[in-house]
Amino acid sequence: MGQKHTISCLVENHFGVLCRVAGLISARGFNIDSLTVGETEDATVSRMTIVVDADERTLEQVKKQLNRLIDVIKVQELKDGEFIDRELVLIKVTATPAKRGEVIQIAETFQSKVVDVNTKTVTVECSGDQGKIHAFLEVMKPFGIKEVVRTGRIALARGTAKEVAKEETSS
Amino acid sequence: MGQKHTISCLVENHFGVLCRVAGLISARGFNIDSLTVGETEDATVSRMTIVVDADERTLEQVKKQLNRLIDVIKVQELKDGEFIDRELVLIKVTATPAKRGEVIQIAETFQSKVVDVNTKTVTVECSGDQGKIHAFLEVMKPFGIKEVVRTGRIALARGTAKEVAKEETSS
Repeated sequence: MGQKHTISCLVENHFGVLCRVAGLISARGFNIDSLTVGETEDATVSRMTIVVDADERTLEQVKKQLNRLIDVIKVQELKDGEFIDRELVLIKVTATPAKRGEVIQIAETFQSKVVDVNTKTVTVECSGDQGKIHAFLEVMKPFGIKEVVRTGRIALARGTAKEVAKEETSS
Repeated sequence: MGQKHTISCLVENHFGVLCRVAGLISARGFNIDSLTVGETEDATVSRMTIVVDADERTLEQVKKQLNRLIDVIKVQELKDGEFIDRELVLIKVTATPAKRGEVIQIAETFQSKVVDVNTKTVTVECSGDQGKIHAFLEVMKPFGIKEVVRTGRIALARGTAKEVAKEETSS
């Protein structure tokens, strides 16, 4: 029915906001894929990236509800093909010295970094879009995943030709 | 007064949990640096990384309160020097073609990736610990930051010698 939509949201930087946004979302039963929040260049403002699985009507509701929250500064929908999204994952897999080389080789193929090694495990840091992260986790599975931690998705609008043209006109 | 503490928390994967944890934290006025949540290898379980600025007594309170929440499966404090922490940032800076080379060179120095370029901006993806991310943002500032989005910190316990020894004894 629905479709994935990515919403980028500037909010006042305090934890009451996170609670209100999470509360709004869970109370209304919106189908949220991920919600990630982090500081911006302005310490008083955070940027939230919300991925929601919804039809157009539900999406409009989510955006309207978010705009009503007092600590929400700006709500922007990022359109398909016009944004860059990334996620970061740390994964610890079982790897005896005999298997270690194989794990490190896969890490290199995915342009990811080995961040810790001992006699029993290897820990790798990998970043990429959802497709890459999914593929990376799949290829690591057979070694035996001991622990995984993911950040959730963040996204930024691409500087599109259109945006650049608009800026040139307005400046 | 306080000191930074990193808590890793396994929770049931639904948004009510995020709301309850954020609510607990904001209601009690705990001084939270960051709170990040993402899926694990088990789709029903998420891992939350919480960085809190607190003295020992407050920290014990936070841990106790978290443990009381019904959807919290496991609360683990990650001790200094015994974990790996990372954050991911996407940054879009102003860079005319004349300045572009300089931005790309800095990106390479930080082992980060250029993910988008147009006639007016360059967007770079950078991951690292807090020190690296801070240094990277500082060196990018003079170009003019247009947009920043950060994931917040994630962390995993290192496979320490002690842990390995313990596992060997118990197996």
